[in-house]
Amino acid sequence: MFVTLEGPEGAGKSTVQGLLAARLREQGRDVLTTREPGAGEVGKAVREVLLHGGDLEPLTELFLFLADRAEHVAKTIRPALAKGTIVLCDRHADSTVVYQGYGRGLDVEKLRDLNAMATQGLRPDVTLLLDIDPVLGLQRTLNKDRLDSEPIEFHHRVRHGFLSEAKREPDRWRVVDASRSPEEVVSDCWAHLAPKL
Amino acid sequence: MFVTLEGPEGAGKSTVQGLLAARLREQGRDVLTTREPGAGEVGKAVREVLLHGGDLEPLTELFLFLADRAEHVAKTIRPALAKGTIVLCDRHADSTVVYQGYGRGLDVEKLRDLNAMATQGLRPDVTLLLDIDPVLGLQRTLNKDRLDSEPIEFHHRVRHGFLSEAKREPDRWRVVDASRSPEEVVSDCWAHLAPKL
Repeated sequence: MFVTLEGPEGAGKSTVQGLLAARLREQGRDVLTTREPGAGEVGKAVREVLLHGGDLEPLTELFLFLADRAEHVAKTIRPALAKGTIVLCDRHADSTVVYQGYGRGLDVEKLRDLNAMATQGLRPDVTLLLDIDPVLGLQRTLNKDRLDSEPIEFHHRVRHGFLSEAKREPDRWRVVDASRSPEEVVSDCWAHLAPKL
Repeated sequence: MFVTLEGPEGAGKSTVQGLLAARLREQGRDVLTTREPGAGEVGKAVREVLLHGGDLEPLTELFLFLADRAEHVAKTIRPALAKGTIVLCDRHADSTVVYQGYGRGLDVEKLRDLNAMATQGLRPDVTLLLDIDPVLGLQRTLNKDRLDSEPIEFHHRVRHGFLSEAKREPDRWRVVDASRSPEEVVSDCWAHLAPKL
């Protein structure tokens, strides 16, 4: 099963990911927690450029994320899924549609096509959207990186984008109110995941 | 005027680029010599990953080159052309079509579309193909990088790819026999360029 966690900065994705993984492991299940941009050579280079590369073109950002995704899916996610491991991924293809499309104004349909190319058709079985007001989310983030310094309107477009995508594919997406405590958020996420296990 | 130099490893592109630039400058013209992957932050990261990132997926390579190209065109090439500078670029979009398409088997038409997206429609006015037998070309290269260690069949497909692309757009491409001395090669290149100046 391929589960992705999506949502704006400060929604608590990595905390929730860790707590869900622990709960799945308690049940004796094999779990891989991973993220995009990934932890491999490509992901590290992409993170480095995104954080310190100055004022990048929207298209440059896009292709860097796609490069990392192609490598991550082929080398990490697919092999894990093939062994029956549950993969919990912090951000994936939907973040590209939302940040580069709704956020930066690139063509959303083209982004869907490019994601399908980069993932060679792999799609998450479940996507948990940790939804939070951008102002609250940003207050929670400690590291101010390049994305965090975007104007608040950008983050409002991103939130709107995530919610629109969730409505578009209600069978895959589950929207969780992430303004609450991690325990409450995880409890909701678990309620969405358990029936799929 | 936007001029690209294309061809396999060891064809002498960078030497020819330097000699052509010198000759253009002697005529009092503004010239920018550049290359892909570029010299900026993105290009440096892309080069680093391509050379040391291990066995990358063909799609990963592709998106890395496109990321660098998007940045390079927007930040370096277009501003130079807008000032009337002659841009001489060592490898550009055609290398992607040839190496990732003919070489690695990705869909050539899709690659053309992706190039058009990354360059936002910019196309070279003249493309000089420095054509050489791959065996001779590889003997000339001193640095064995990841691409050089491909099997010779790969390099034969690449040569065939360049020649096929040149036939496809004969108005833009000029094929130069690069097995000769740099002076002879430059002299031919100059004969192709001069009428366009």
